[in-house]
Amino acid sequence: MENIYAQFPQDLTREHFSDLVQSEHVRIERIISRGQSSPESGWYDQEDHEWVIVLEGSAGIRFEDGREIVLRKGDHVKIPAHVRHRVSHTDPDNITLWLAVFYR
Amino acid sequence: MENIYAQFPQDLTREHFSDLVQSEHVRIERIISRGQSSPESGWYDQEDHEWVIVLEGSAGIRFEDGREIVLRKGDHVKIPAHVRHRVSHTDPDNITLWLAVFYR
Repeated sequence: MENIYAQFPQDLTREHFSDLVQSEHVRIERIISRGQSSPESGWYDQEDHEWVIVLEGSAGIRFEDGREIVLRKGDHVKIPAHVRHRVSHTDPDNITLWLAVFYR
Repeated sequence: MENIYAQFPQDLTREHFSDLVQSEHVRIERIISRGQSSPESGWYDQEDHEWVIVLEGSAGIRFEDGREIVLRKGDHVKIPAHVRHRVSHTDPDNITLWLAVFYR
């Protein structure tokens, strides 16, 4: 048994990614951010579908079609494979804790 | 976009299960409990692997080999397919909010 709030990193100048589950068809990832965003050119274009929830903090996701959503505690969204998106911002003052499930 | 804390049921005399994602290889489920447990004979014996996290409240899981774990906010555990287990208790006074990912 592990705890998703445990082993929080000290260095929050970069984002931290850790796999909680990795199997043939699914990967579950914990992401910790504070103030980071994707670079302007940094679109995610993923082979897998993604379901992502914000457990703490808040973050914006911008889609290539111009749509932007802001996720706060408990908000979750499905991002189909190859729907290009980027993180437009994360809370600069508090940790944003994401849980992402990637699947075929 | 949806929120995992939204649309909490009024009737907590039974558990509530809702699918957040359902695809060929993965199913993500929200479970809301308050005080329920599996019946003494009610072992779960699942075809799929399960990764489960408690987001609010607390709950016990007992395994067929006698081992019991208690999960509190943020605790998560992997339960391989066909590892028989039951929910030994959930917090009787507060909602227990589970997020479960079932995968092949």
